Amino acid sequence: MSNFNVLILGSASATPTLHRNPTSQLVTINQQLYLIDCGEGTQLQLRKHNVNFNRIHHIFISHLHGDHYLGLIGLLQTMHLLGRENELTVFGPKNLKEIIEVHFKYSKSYPSYSLNFVELSTESPSIIYETDKLTVETIILTHRLPCTGFLFKEKAKPRRINPQAIAQYNIPIHALNKLKLGLDFIRSEHDIIKNKLLTDDSLPSYSYAYCSDTAYNEAILSQIDRVSLLYHEATFMEIDKDRAIKTKHSTAKEAATIALKSKANYLIIGHFSNRYKHLDELLNEAKTVFKKTELASEGICFEVAKM
Amino acid sequence: MSNFNVLILGSASATPTLHRNPTSQLVTINQQLYLIDCGEGTQLQLRKHNVNFNRIHHIFISHLHGDHYLGLIGLLQTMHLLGRENELTVFGPKNLKEIIEVHFKYSKSYPSYSLNFVELSTESPSIIYETDKLTVETIILTHRLPCTGFLFKEKAKPRRINPQAIAQYNIPIHALNKLKLGLDFIRSEHDIIKNKLLTDDSLPSYSYAYCSDTAYNEAILSQIDRVSLLYHEATFMEIDKDRAIKTKHSTAKEAATIALKSKANYLIIGHFSNRYKHLDELLNEAKTVFKKTELASEGICFEVAKM
Repeated sequence: MSNFNVLILGSASATPTLHRNPTSQLVTINQQLYLIDCGEGTQLQLRKHNVNFNRIHHIFISHLHGDHYLGLIGLLQTMHLLGRENELTVFGPKNLKEIIEVHFKYSKSYPSYSLNFVELSTESPSIIYETDKLTVETIILTHRLPCTGFLFKEKAKPRRINPQAIAQYNIPIHALNKLKLGLDFIRSEHDIIKNKLLTDDSLPSYSYAYCSDTAYNEAILSQIDRVSLLYHEATFMEIDKDRAIKTKHSTAKEAATIALKSKANYLIIGHFSNRYKHLDELLNEAKTVFKKTELASEGICFEVAKM
Repeated sequence: MSNFNVLILGSASATPTLHRNPTSQLVTINQQLYLIDCGEGTQLQLRKHNVNFNRIHHIFISHLHGDHYLGLIGLLQTMHLLGRENELTVFGPKNLKEIIEVHFKYSKSYPSYSLNFVELSTESPSIIYETDKLTVETIILTHRLPCTGFLFKEKAKPRRINPQAIAQYNIPIHALNKLKLGLDFIRSEHDIIKNKLLTDDSLPSYSYAYCSDTAYNEAILSQIDRVSLLYHEATFMEIDKDRAIKTKHSTAKEAATIALKSKANYLIIGHFSNRYKHLDELLNEAKTVFKKTELASEGICFEVAKM
């Protein structure tokens, strides 16, 4: 597995079927696991793909329609029953905490581990999580309920030290960190060695934008500009656009238009309505606008660096 | 399918696995469907067995541990999304209604159909549902939370008219209902035809007792006396009896002892702890006390009349 990948755990819209689970995705970045949305049955999907629940420290819930969070209560309770001790943080809309806690209260089953809720603003995008290598921002989506997407962005990576050059120019170890930042090595006023002689270019920084559920909304374009991988819901086809408008969902063509206009490198579509038996039709509709499109499908792992 | 059967939808205890779902059973009596408990994923189990959700009008929830009700919210929402119009009644413990309604409130998704909640007393057994052919009573179980089992009891069935005898004795049609009740036919003071000459014995009336989750509790014996089919949880084996006592569950041997002492015709055990990889060991333990025992297993349909 690469350092940045997205595993699809569920690709259905409102009602699950025997072949499609409700929405959930597992994003892995530098061996850190981030769960996005958690429809009913997600804990079984995680088991099916041999995911160690203890390695999940952050869960992101987009909105309070059941197909995006009803599996969360069972997952939190199973983590407790498995003896979890690691802290867990759930990012989600206002009221998610109240919903979860009513279950704990009446089942008299409070988790043994430390469980934090972070209430997301649905007013404007903001950075909700940050490490030295990564930020996660909310994306304000347009749906029947307040709904946020999530943008995972790797920070600029350090330039890569060239060991041969370091030896050749006799560079001391204490200088390496500055070289990684792109600075030249200054031995004296007259002895300056250009950074480019000592380092190779950084590895690229990747990004992943998760946009479900949402009506077509160009307001998000600047935020997701040139994203490496865009997941955009495509609940309907253009032929059912009236339903898309009414329910504040998108068509496959609209998802592809967002990908095109944001100059995304690659697009995944998902959250398919049960009415479509042949998903290739949605894929083809999207591809008329944006060729580099794939269907979300349970068990597929998209490796961002290889797309 | 016979007129009285029990389909096992889930046989796991607290945490689901890839092979065992959390507790749920579908009881069918005279083409009427009754859902008992509804762990996460039950709606998919119903789909898997081609159950028409519209035919379910009554759902019985035993208690508020997640593995017995977390699938209910999604099932109710899916029924709404499928355009259900039929009324639905949910029997369950105090606070179940509040738990469900907090989800409706924040998802702004109230069902289109009429949804009734009946709050069950956990003080003493009572008849909670009755038709001309059937009663359903609560069974007061002993668990960490207030918990009720359910006893489905067919009423005494009418004696069966013997058409040849009716013709031979020239019995008028208006007299048949009284014959079904067991009364003799009185043509005149001196012309009385014994019921036994005109009718055959009634078909047997069957009963099903669902007892999960519970510690060993002989107080239920008189209520379930001579039950046709007893489902009794057997979360543990005798070797783990300390855990059974601590968590207020039963061992396989205890379940079998309840079957023996209640003179049940047949026993199903279920709600197995994940610690047991070979369920035959639980079965064998039960059979040392009560031979006519079967393991609950997803997809098995027990036909009560054939057991």
